[in-house]
This record gives sequence, C-alpha cells and structure tokens, in this order.
Amino acid sequence: MIPTSQSAGPKLPRVRDTGLALGALPPGALNAITDVPGILVGQETVLFGDGPLQPGKGPARTGVTVILPHPGNCYLDRVPAAAFVFNGFGKCLGLEQLDELGLLETPIALTSTLSVPRVADGLITHAIRQNPGIGITLPTVNPFVGECSDAWLNDIQGRHAGERESLKAIDAAAAGPVAEGSVGAGVGMSAFGFKGGIGTASRRLPDDLGGWTIGVLVLANFGRRGQLVIDGVPVGRLLDARTAANPERGSIMIVIGTDAPLLDRQLRRLARRAPLGMARTGSTGGHGSGDVAIAFSTAVSVRHPFAPERLTLALESVAESGPGGASSVIDGLFAAVVEATEEAILNALFRAVSITGRDGNTREALPVERVVDILEEAGRLPRAAR
Amino acid sequence: MIPTSQSAGPKLPRVRDTGLALGALPPGALNAITDVPGILVGQETVLFGDGPLQPGKGPARTGVTVILPHPGNCYLDRVPAAAFVFNGFGKCLGLEQLDELGLLETPIALTSTLSVPRVADGLITHAIRQNPGIGITLPTVNPFVGECSDAWLNDIQGRHAGERESLKAIDAAAAGPVAEGSVGAGVGMSAFGFKGGIGTASRRLPDDLGGWTIGVLVLANFGRRGQLVIDGVPVGRLLDARTAANPERGSIMIVIGTDAPLLDRQLRRLARRAPLGMARTGSTGGHGSGDVAIAFSTAVSVRHPFAPERLTLALESVAESGPGGASSVIDGLFAAVVEATEEAILNALFRAVSITGRDGNTREALPVERVVDILEEAGRLPRAAR
Amino acid sequence: MIPTSQSAGPKLPRVRDTGLALGALPPGALNAITDVPGILVGQETVLFGDGPLQPGKGPARTGVTVILPHPGNCYLDRVPAAAFVFNGFGKCLGLEQLDELGLLETPIALTSTLSVPRVADGLITHAIRQNPGIGITLPTVNPFVGECSDAWLNDIQGRHAGERESLKAIDAAAAGPVAEGSVGAGVGMSAFGFKGGIGTASRRLPDDLGGWTIGVLVLANFGRRGQLVIDGVPVGRLLDARTAANPERGSIMIVIGTDAPLLDRQLRRLARRAPLGMARTGSTGGHGSGDVAIAFSTAVSVRHPFAPERLTLALESVAESGPGGASSVIDGLFAAVVEATEEAILNALFRAVSITGRDGNTREALPVERVVDILEEAGRLPRAAR
Amino acid sequence: MIPTSQSAGPKLPRVRDTGLALGALPPGALNAITDVPGILVGQETVLFGDGPLQPGKGPARTGVTVILPHPGNCYLDRVPAAAFVFNGFGKCLGLEQLDELGLLETPIALTSTLSVPRVADGLITHAIRQNPGIGITLPTVNPFVGECSDAWLNDIQGRHAGERESLKAIDAAAAGPVAEGSVGAGVGMSAFGFKGGIGTASRRLPDDLGGWTIGVLVLANFGRRGQLVIDGVPVGRLLDARTAANPERGSIMIVIGTDAPLLDRQLRRLARRAPLGMARTGSTGGHGSGDVAIAFSTAVSVRHPFAPERLTLALESVAESGPGGASSVIDGLFAAVVEATEEAILNALFRAVSITGRDGNTREALPVERVVDILEEAGRLPRAAR
Repeated sequence: MIPTSQSAGPKLPRVRDTGLALGALPPGALNAITDVPGILVGQETVLFGDGPLQPGKGPARTGVTVILPHPGNCYLDRVPAAAFVFNGFGKCLGLEQLDELGLLETPIALTSTLSVPRVADGLITHAIRQNPGIGITLPTVNPFVGECSDAWLNDIQGRHAGERESLKAIDAAAAGPVAEGSVGAGVGMSAFGFKGGIGTASRRLPDDLGGWTIGVLVLANFGRRGQLVIDGVPVGRLLDARTAANPERGSIMIVIGTDAPLLDRQLRRLARRAPLGMARTGSTGGHGSGDVAIAFSTAVSVRHPFAPERLTLALESVAESGPGGASSVIDGLFAAVVEATEEAILNALFRAVSITGRDGNTREALPVERVVDILEEAGRLPRAAR
Repeated sequence: MIPTSQSAGPKLPRVRDTGLALGALPPGALNAITDVPGILVGQETVLFGDGPLQPGKGPARTGVTVILPHPGNCYLDRVPAAAFVFNGFGKCLGLEQLDELGLLETPIALTSTLSVPRVADGLITHAIRQNPGIGITLPTVNPFVGECSDAWLNDIQGRHAGERESLKAIDAAAAGPVAEGSVGAGVGMSAFGFKGGIGTASRRLPDDLGGWTIGVLVLANFGRRGQLVIDGVPVGRLLDARTAANPERGSIMIVIGTDAPLLDRQLRRLARRAPLGMARTGSTGGHGSGDVAIAFSTAVSVRHPFAPERLTLALESVAESGPGGASSVIDGLFAAVVEATEEAILNALFRAVSITGRDGNTREALPVERVVDILEEAGRLPRAAR
Repeated sequence: MIPTSQSAGPKLPRVRDTGLALGALPPGALNAITDVPGILVGQETVLFGDGPLQPGKGPARTGVTVILPHPGNCYLDRVPAAAFVFNGFGKCLGLEQLDELGLLETPIALTSTLSVPRVADGLITHAIRQNPGIGITLPTVNPFVGECSDAWLNDIQGRHAGERESLKAIDAAAAGPVAEGSVGAGVGMSAFGFKGGIGTASRRLPDDLGGWTIGVLVLANFGRRGQLVIDGVPVGRLLDARTAANPERGSIMIVIGTDAPLLDRQLRRLARRAPLGMARTGSTGGHGSGDVAIAFSTAVSVRHPFAPERLTLALESVAESGPGGASSVIDGLFAAVVEATEEAILNALFRAVSITGRDGNTREALPVERVVDILEEAGRLPRAAR
Repeated sequence: MIPTSQSAGPKLPRVRDTGLALGALPPGALNAITDVPGILVGQETVLFGDGPLQPGKGPARTGVTVILPHPGNCYLDRVPAAAFVFNGFGKCLGLEQLDELGLLETPIALTSTLSVPRVADGLITHAIRQNPGIGITLPTVNPFVGECSDAWLNDIQGRHAGERESLKAIDAAAAGPVAEGSVGAGVGMSAFGFKGGIGTASRRLPDDLGGWTIGVLVLANFGRRGQLVIDGVPVGRLLDARTAANPERGSIMIVIGTDAPLLDRQLRRLARRAPLGMARTGSTGGHGSGDVAIAFSTAVSVRHPFAPERLTLALESVAESGPGGASSVIDGLFAAVVEATEEAILNALFRAVSITGRDGNTREALPVERVVDILEEAGRLPRAAR
C-alpha cells in the first residue's frame, strides 16, 4: 500500500512544530484555513496503479480538494470574492463571472490541470442537487476550479479526478484540522524539486484591529530546488541538491478566506499580496507556473442573498483609512496574507510524503531533519525546539 | 421531424439578400468568417425529445459550434489571440492563459452554459489525439470554450453537448458557407425575444489598406424584444410585440478572425470594438448577459511555433500609426469588426427557424417578411430588392 | 467679439427641443447631469487672439469644465467612483488610485490634452486651500483630469488652461442648467466633422425601480463626418458633406453621475456601457480617440468619510439580482447610461456654435435646420415639433 | 552646507561592496540600469531652506530623476513598454496610453507626489522643443511620471520640482555610474524607517540565453523599520529599533530597462515580477504605498518609428517557449528582475545620507556598519569582505 500523508501524517511535523515561528502575527488555534469560522475543507485522493504509464488508464496520483466558504447553500447565499492572476499560464474556470459580480456561488475546487472540466462538471451536479431549479426556474451556476499539473507522477491524460470525486470531496468537507501534503489535489504535486501538495496556515489580528482571522490553503506545485528559502535561509542551496536545470513548470493555487467583512475590491487587494508570500519561499515567478490567488469573506454582513426582498443591500466593509486616518486593519490583513501564504507553502513541503508515480518517477519528500539542522545552524531555531 | 436551419435554411434570406447593405465596407465572397483563408467552422446539433422537461433526460435543444483558426495542429502552431469581456456574467473557459500568453492553442468551441466543462473535455481529448505527448513529453493544453444559456428551450441540466459532440463538430469543420440560425450551439438560443443562434458576416479592407478580411461569427442569445434595431430602424417597437418585461438574461459570444498580422494587444483592441456592433442592434448591455469577444489572427507571420529553434521570433504587426502617421488600417479593421458584428447578429435572427423545446416552450423566428416591410417603409430598402 | 454658446446658446435648440425623444426612459427636469441632486458644474472658457498660430502665445480656443459630486469637501467626504477606458489613446490623470480605492477625492476636471498637468496642478491647489493639512498632517491628494485635443483650433502648445482657470471653474460651479457646446473645455473641440464640445442629458428610473437619476456630461471631440447617426438616421451621409478622409483623432470624455447607491464595481459596469451610447451616434471606436468614461455615486449611504470612527463602514448597494431574482434596477441604470450618453453627445453638437481658431481654421456648427429636415423626412419628428 | 549622496557618496559602500552577493545572476559592469546600452539617467536635486515648514516656501528636500531609453528622440523613436500597478495608491501620469499602445514616447520621470503635474509639464515642454510640430502637424504627447511622497522632510505643497527642474534633469542625463540615495527624486524619501531614495542594480543573462541585461532603478520610499530583511536576515528586527507604529505610507517606483527584444505583453510580465523583489526586502505591500513597476525594451528590433513607410512593422520577440520547449530565457529575465529590484532597493538604503528637512524632521541613514556586523554574524558575509 502506498502511504499518504493522511496515514503517515501524524509523524511529520508542521513548520511551527519545529520551533520556527514565521512572521510577526500569531496563528489561529489550528493554524489552518478552518480557523475562519464556517470554512470547511474536503479532499478526495485518487491513487491507484503502478509502473509504466498507460495513457488514460493509470497510474493515478491525483485528487480533488474543495474549500466551502460556509456550510450552507453556496448558490443561494453568495459570498464576496475576488481573484488575482499573478501568472496566467493556467486553466482556471470561473474567473470571468467572479470579476464581474464579485461573488462566489460554488465551493472552490482544486485539482489536476486536465481534470478541471470534469471537476467543474461535478460542482455543477452538486449545485443542481442542492438547487433543482437551476437552469429551469433559477439562473445557471458559475463553478470555480483551480489547478496545477501533476503530470510528472500522474497519468494526467486519464483525468481520473472527475464528477464522482468532486462530489465525494464535498461530502467529506469538514471543519477542524486539514490533511496536508500528498493528499486530495496534492497527491501528485511537486514544489522546489521536492514533494509538494496541500498546505495551510492562518493568522489572527489583535482584538483592537478587529480580531479577524486570515486562513490560507495552497496547492503548491512550483519552484525549482535551488530556489527554496525558509525564513530567509537558502535551504535549497544548502541541501546537497544539484540545482535542477528544468524550468519551473509548476503552479500554485492560493485560497484565502477571512471573517473580516471585505468587499470584492478589497479581497482583490488581499489576493494581490499572496505572491509576496511566494517570494519569501524563494520563487521568482516562473513562466510556466500558473499562479492564481482567490480571496473570499465569510462575514454574514457582506453576503449577497440570491433574491433579496429590497432594491438595495446593506453591506459592511473594513474601513481602509481607519479611525484617525490609520490604515492598520487593512495593513494587518495584508501582512497576514503574506505570512500565512508563506507558512502554508512550507507546511505543504514539510507534510508531504514521498510518492512514486508513473514510470517509476519518484518525488522525494523534503528531508525535514536535515532542513531542521540547517535552520538550527543558521540560528533560526531554539535548540530546545527539537 | 423538427426542422432546423440546415434543412430549412435555403429558403430563409440572409440580411443582405433583402437588399439591405449594412455599413460602409464590402463583405467577402461568402460574407462569413470563412472568408478569412484557413478558418474552418464545424457544428453539431443535439436535438431530441419533446414535451415536458425531464431534467437530465431531455428534451434536448442544444449543440456545439467550433471555429478553427487553421486546418493544422492548433496546439503546435499557435495563433495570437485576445479576448474582451464586456460583461462577465458568463462561464467561459480559457481566458486566463489567453491573457497571459496571447495565444490560442485549441479550436474555439461555443455551447450551452452548463455544457462548457464537457465540451472542454472534448477539446482536451482532441488535442491529445493530435498530440499524444500532451502531459507526458509536452505541456498541458488550454481549451477555449464560450457559452450562452439555452435553458428556456433546452434541458440544460442534461448537459447533452459533451465530449462526443465536440469531437464530431471538429471532424465536421470545413471552409465554405456556414450554416446559421438554429444550428450547432445556436439550436436553443434566443435573441431580442425571437429565435437566435449562429450568425456570421465579413468585411474586406481596400487593397491600399492591406486588403485584409475581418470575419465574425456570433452565438446570439441576447436582447429584449422592444430593443431590436435594424439599420437604425426600431423594428422591435414597430412589430406589434408587447415589450417583454423579462430582464435580459441571454448572452453573446463574438468570434473575430482576420488574416491581418496583428499581435495580441491589437487583437484585444479589435475585440473591444465588438460591443459597438451589439449596440447597433439595440442592446444596452444587460446585467445577465455574459458578453465576450475573442479575436485571433491567422497570418502565418504572427504564429508562434511550439518549440522554435532560435531564442527569438520574427513577427509582423500592422503599424497602428501608419505611413505618414495615418491610422487608416487599424481604423478600417475596427470599423470592419463593428459592421461584421452587427450583420452577423442580424443574420442569426434572419436565418433561425422557430423551435419548440421543453415544456412546449416555443421561440418564434423573426417574421422576416414583416421586417422587410418595415424596412421598406422606412426607406431603407430599394423596392426592387423584393 | 467671438460668440460662444453661453451667449448664443438660448437660440440654439437642444435635441429634445426639436421633438426628438431619444430612448425609452424619461429625462430629469433639466435633462442634465445636474438633475442628480448635489452635482455642480463649473466652466471657464479661454478664448483670445486671432489669426496665425504663434506657438505658446495663441490664438487660444480652450478651457476647463469641472464636475463636483457634491457641494462639500471632496477630499474629506469621498464618493465611490470607477472608470472604464474604452480606448486608452489619452492622457488622463488619476485613474490608478481610482481603480485601487474606488474613490474620487477631487472634482473631475476636463480640459485640453496638453493642459492636463496645469489643470491638475489647479485641483491640487484647490484641495490644499480647502484642506491646509494636505501633505503635512493629512495624506496627499489624487486629482482626476480628463482631456481631448483641441489642437485644430487652439494653440495647444500654449497650455492656456491652467491653475488659475481651474480655480475659476471650481468657483463658478453651480447646480441648475449647464451651458453646452463651445464652452469651457469644449471651446476648441470637434465631433463628426462639426463643432463639438460640452453636452449633457439625464434619465430617471421609475419609482418602483428606485426612482434614481443618471446624469451624463460629455466632452465630445470624436467621430468622422460620414459616420454621424441620429436616432438611427445616417445624418452624416445624408448631409451633402464629403466624408472626411482624415482618421478619427479626437476623443470623448464621458462623466456619469447618479444618486443610486452603487459601489465602485457597479459603477465600473455603468461606465463600461457608455461606449454603447457612442455607438448609437455612429462611432466605430477610432484608434486615435482616447475614450474614457468615469462614473460616481452621490448617495450619502456609500460615501467614505476620510477618518471614520469605527473599524468598518456601513454601505448600501443596489441589489444586482433584485427582488424575485429580477435585475430590473441595474438593467434600468445601464439603459439610462446608454441613452443619456447618446443624447449628451448630440446636445453637444446641436448647441455648439461655429468657432474660428488658429490659422483661420474654422469648425462649422452642425446645420441644425437641415438635420431637422432630414429627421422629419425619415419620419422621426412629428411635424408639429417645428 | 547640507551633504548629499553625490558629494558624500564615494565613502558609502554599495551593497555588493560589503561582499554580499545577492541572488544567483551576475551584475553588469556598473551594476546599474545604465549597463543596458543606450539608457541615460539624469537627476536634479532641489534642496534649500531650513527650519519650520512654511507651506509653499520651503524647506525643499525634493527633486527629479529621469530615465531615457535611448539618447535619441523618444517621441519619434518609440520603445515598447508596459507597467504593472501592484498597489494603485499613487498618482502616476501616463499609464493609460501605455496600456493601450504599449509604447513609451517620453523619458520616464520620477518625482514628489504633488509635483507630478509640474514635472509632466516639463516633459511636454521638452517634447515640444525636440518636436516643434507637436499639436500642430504631429499628434500630442503622453508624458510618463511616477511619484513617491517626500512629505515628511519636504515642503510638498510647494511643488518645488517642476518644469525647470525636469528640463535640467533631462539635460544632465548621461550613461555611466548613477548617483544613488538622497539625490534627485530621492532627496526626501524614506524606506524602512531609514533614509531611502534612488538605487540601481543590474543582472546579465549567460550568453547561451542571449546575454541580455536587465537594469533596474528604484525610487524607494516604502516599508516599516521592523520589516527590513537583507539576504534573508531580519535586519530591521535586529537593529535596536523600536518597530514604528506608523502605517506604511510610502511608495516605490521601479523602472526596468532591458536590451532583450520584448513586446509590451512580455514587458508587463517582467513588471509583474518586481514586487517579488520588494518582498525579499521584507515588504508586505502596505495599503498606503503606491507601488508601480514600468518596464521597457531598448532593442532596436522592437522600436516603433512614428510614421513607418509600410503598412506593417517587422518586430522581434523573445520566444517564451524556447528551443526544445524550454522557457529558460524568459525565466532568466524574470529572475533578473527580482534580483535587481532587491539589490536596487538595498543600494538606495546603503547609499543614502541622513537628511534633515522641514520642522527639523531628520531621517537617519541606515547604520551600514552595524548592518554589516549583523550580516557577518548571520554568516552571510565573508570575514575578508570588510
């Protein structure tokens, strides 16, 4: 049996377990996107077959990860959302309507590049099941799907994550701790030449700045080996790895959730800061890396009911120039996005187990013990942390 | 048997057959997008069942229309392209990478809103068949699919246009005359309260301005009855139609092809002019209408081979400030886009046969004879034209 | 003395005075942007010299037009606003911050292309006078200036509209009727080969759709003679004018104000519809025409005070999917923008007096009597209207 | 006499002089934007007065810095260019036309926020002097000006940098070493709580990747003290500085020049990577920081002559998917932008002398010796480097 991070997970430390406290803001209780009240995460792993690639048949190293902004009906109870496309070498579905209306009306799904259509088909099926009037008495629905390429480990032509897997991921969605690493959409992903995948983290603002939480979940599949930086230490160079000559062909999807009441314009500003978190881990923004961040607010005070009873909506919005002209709240939210993105990426690396996929291709996990040694030598870890 | 425009078509006049010469520039030989050398159009109509809606089972009034920029391998021999989203209340797939790289690497497919994923899946399958190395030795592929909602006539939840239909449409792609109206993706569409669907038109620049051709193909599914304007005459109001109280929930997809050597930035400028053609037919840009224009160039001198042998490409580009500082060529191309968009929309209306769909819902064809009378009375048609 | 529309104006009819009722919605009491409560318009005309151009010295045929969203302090009491750049061959100042924050913090000024900096300097001076703490205890200020080129009549190199003229225009700002045609920023402008300049119009939604008003003010300097269309009638072609061979080098600035409570995203949607109004007058979107629309809301319920006392703001927003799922209000606002833009452009043409400028260049006014004859013959005017 | 970095400069080390080799790519000969052949930089410092602020009269701590893409006539011999607005809380002039046409037609000028109009007026005057037909026989001109706020040291209301200073800066433009720190537009700027201003750096690609050079010049005026990171070391925290409670109100302008033949779409991709360089120095993207990057190519093979003799232009463009499908060249250019931006920012800090401005406000220079100690302790500097 091939181990996955879900089984092997408990033995692997998260970044913070090593004693490394990245950034200046404190994380939430779980240090996960699910620290934002109401957010659910569900994952379905597709992992079968071994040996030589048989295009369309396997081996499969792929999956689906879904993020629900709230446990209710996403189609009827829409939340404000906005995306920032840092590098559009990607195949997301759903950005167009998100830009126009500033609303999310399905769960966010992440998957393998060529599986985007089939997973989107699953989101449509789910929306119809919850709302049988879609396309009859109700408008159609705009699914949102993001992707990275797991082609190096996975029979990507097989599109093994589809409607069924999406529905199972949604059914499995729950609050609480989030499985990280080689799980769900992350099974076949690589980052910085090591095994990548799903990672998450969170940050909480002080009470006098609203006490709001920023949660980030990433699908990390980007970066070249020599580039990896952890807390400023050039870990990639210091590991005895030869710098891979291959261009950066991966991608990263960054999902940002918050309970701060923010409108779509403000959420786009949050999303635009996420690449700064990527930069902290060493990325220079590769040509072949489709990098997209999407941010949404779960605050009830900013939701758009499908068919309101009045001509106008009453909305709440964080004041960007706050009391006394200060911009502390929005600046705090920006910093939280950068810090949580950085830590979510590193959690994906720390928690991912090695995976062997098609044609015997193997992506090794980050050698966490050696990384800890390096960080210790660089004076970044308290000795007691081990 | 339910008549479609393909069978009934020959009897229905196109706009220009009535004697109405819209705009100032001359059309190409076919007055179709296929006047641009190399462009192929293929359509697959999905039409079965009758009577009450059985969600997921029918009746089906839908289909797929594909536009190929050239008869070769779209994935290996990419053409510059760019889109303009006039109103993003739509569910296109593929815009993100188009914006980033400025290249089209599959046929353009148009279909029913909820069928976008399944049709995209078909484009992926087609690309893999032509290029078995996709996702193995070659990068993944970015399919482009546009949509309008045929929910009023069609069992849209059934997503009856899918992979199989997309492949059949691509197989059927050909140069020459293009079937219009209730055909392909147009089967279930409505425009200005009448039957809409597929329409096409073209314009040719004078030889001293390069002699290039602009071809437009639309999937017309927008506009309210009272709004319809033809050559400046308020035909919608003059028909004895009560102005429909329903909001504009349709959409329009506008595909622009040209043999002029244009780069993606220039093609975006062309696409941005297409809504001016919509405006000529009476639209005020409805909230619920997802309106997207995509433009591409077929000129060999602007193509991007997948893996060039040199570090740089040699490209050609229409000079926007031309000889003597004049901007005549680009202005001519802009005018051609506006005129051809207007005429393509009206051709969709003129050529569409009435269709009865789910629950007995019937969308009547434009009463062309009465429209001709109205235009004649307004002095827009020569008497001899009839 | 050279006559201006301010003196000669009363004798020139506006479009609606001829009996032509453009569009479907009723105008406000003044049929002007000032129908929106609180909006003020001020204009300063700069008109001196005659004969041959003496670069830098004259003759001057230029000016400034300012639009104030409310009579208060724009810097402290900011209104939501957004712009749409239809064709960016222009030199606006202030779009960047408008996009980021969605707020307007100075009056909107319109002027001659090369005068943008000096007029912006004037807006800065005005903001400092009202708020002496700017750049000391308060942040800096973002002036918004739009422009068209009056180079054919005016000594544009002289930049004769500047700080002083801007301050005078702001001082002169008032509610009530707005002078149109060859006045303020419109003195030296041309449209469709005739004298253009300032024009305005408004539309009012029915009470059951909120009863809100859309007001539009344009600086019209675009279009070639043969293109002009009025209410669908090709007036440009029917006048005995030879179609000018010159490319379209003009521009249009479109200012949209409303008392509907709209957020910046919604205002951008309004602005994006304005080019449809241009299309109704015959434009095909010329390369050399810098076409920008800016929309703002005067509703008190959407204003952003400079330094709020709380961490969040309470805002109101028109529900885009309204009661019962209908989108009637936003669709009504869109239609109002298109109709008012069309009529404002035509008012600029109808009300502009002929102007002779540098080197004896003369731009003739639209021959309104002959235009009325043409519209009458086309059956668009009731005989009694004359 | 108040010392400026021009006089005191020789004594202050640049980052690389300390032995710190940031990034992986080698710098050019000067490690400056002027390593790109043809690029000229000119600066004019405005520095007079002392003591209490007398609004409009002084003290002045401001200036202008100009970057010329080539020594010729920018208006007639236009270079491709594109900008990325990372945070639009800024007041740039000229972005609109840059986006539409993808061309730069004046020098790039950087200055104090409220001086943007007056400096733009200077660029117009300069363009007219070189091209007396502007606005008469030639089209108008689009000046490009970027800004940061020097309000804490400078009498910003006085707008002391204007037409005269811009013309002097252009006259002074030269190839060769570039003065850094408290010079030109940088005189009154602060970064990370220390004195900031002008900084520059460059990177050169290997010959087999084209051998092209990326040069960056920044006007650095952003970041809070505690945030400063140098080569991954949290220098800001390690200095005994209390973390300033003030929000980030500064900005950064990033100018990127290259001799690689790139089109505007590609240049926008370069500009979008610049914020990753900011992130390396510790920024989290402050709300009040207007952050804009502009990139241009000096390659003769991509220039747009004003009035070409043919209908089309022949252009050259770096192949983004290069020989064998590799993306090494564009990835190299991206990495070069990130590295050169990081180093240019740090050079601004290292080279800036302390400045006392209005009301006795003093911004201290970075204590370079202590920073070197910190970097040495962190093992980032060879002992021999001192």
